[in-house]
Amino acid sequence: MKGLFITLEGGDGAGKSTQISNIESFFRERGFVVVHTREPGGTPIGEKLRDILLDRNNGEMDPVAEMLIYAASRAQHVAEVIRPAVNEGKVVICDRFTDSSIAYQGYGRGLGDVVSEVNASATGGLEPDITFWLDIDPEAGRERAKQTGEPDRLELEKIDFHYRLYEGYKALALAYPERIKRIDATRTPDEMKGEIFAHLEKLCAKE
Amino acid sequence: MKGLFITLEGGDGAGKSTQISNIESFFRERGFVVVHTREPGGTPIGEKLRDILLDRNNGEMDPVAEMLIYAASRAQHVAEVIRPAVNEGKVVICDRFTDSSIAYQGYGRGLGDVVSEVNASATGGLEPDITFWLDIDPEAGRERAKQTGEPDRLELEKIDFHYRLYEGYKALALAYPERIKRIDATRTPDEMKGEIFAHLEKLCAKE
Repeated sequence: MKGLFITLEGGDGAGKSTQISNIESFFRERGFVVVHTREPGGTPIGEKLRDILLDRNNGEMDPVAEMLIYAASRAQHVAEVIRPAVNEGKVVICDRFTDSSIAYQGYGRGLGDVVSEVNASATGGLEPDITFWLDIDPEAGRERAKQTGEPDRLELEKIDFHYRLYEGYKALALAYPERIKRIDATRTPDEMKGEIFAHLEKLCAKE
Repeated sequence: MKGLFITLEGGDGAGKSTQISNIESFFRERGFVVVHTREPGGTPIGEKLRDILLDRNNGEMDPVAEMLIYAASRAQHVAEVIRPAVNEGKVVICDRFTDSSIAYQGYGRGLGDVVSEVNASATGGLEPDITFWLDIDPEAGRERAKQTGEPDRLELEKIDFHYRLYEGYKALALAYPERIKRIDATRTPDEMKGEIFAHLEKLCAKE
């Protein structure tokens, strides 16, 4: 029995953590083994790469180097955690995946199509069964995120960077309407949960 | 005035360090500013990536992740060190570059063409003006390398890995005869130096 691979996407302050907990409960209550993981990171090698990526002292990072480090972390994550778990019938819930790289590096940094190409190698073509894009206006998201501690290297980027990556998410949602479900993140957490659970019920009925 | 970008390649124990010193002297005596650097590494971010790559505790590294970390280190190196120095008229001598990735990951790990494609993005198309491939039989090279301290994660690979990467270097030398100069590394260091200097004289005459 094949499991499920579910990803959460969106800018800062969209409320991903709360919805990840909700999705975990949804599947645990139905008797699934759930693996909750995150990117960058999720493996010992990936966590070391994450430290390099988010370190505020690495301000001089080349955009292509940055994109490749994210992809490396993802390749390790897919090989060591995600693919084995899905193959064992588990539900893998991942905070960010390839869509983040396309939004942040492809659109935010302007690297374009090379990001999808490199990531297709990194993932060996693995795609999520469903992706929830928690859609919030960049300005509003940043206001919310400010309330939760010190910003990392990427959160420190200027607002126009966040608007560019927002355009990336919009383009992705348009290109993959079957996979990517847009969730209006200006609504209450409970309203969002209701909408997400409706999608999950449909997904489970299909499988 | 554009500078020069020179790379040294070859398996372990071929005597790269000695020849790098010789090449440095060659150019310093002619009044050039020389930058001696290495891969993986060569920048603060790259050295952190190098630590991850060579750490013997990271035995479970996915081959694609490994290839991407090398490429990330290279992208940072080109952007921060190599390209600026060459543009300022300096001579950059680099211990390993893209050819190493093609040999070690493309041939050694069997990843194939994706390695050149990813590295073309990483380097923005930058290629060495000349590359010296210090050619030594893998078995003989390993015997020599054993005498210089503890082996790292890649040196610990089985001998057939080293034979595959050797095939990679042979194929590269065949494909790029203008750029890659094969130096017989079974000869004495002084004989090798003589041959390398002859190539450098020719290169300088052309510039």
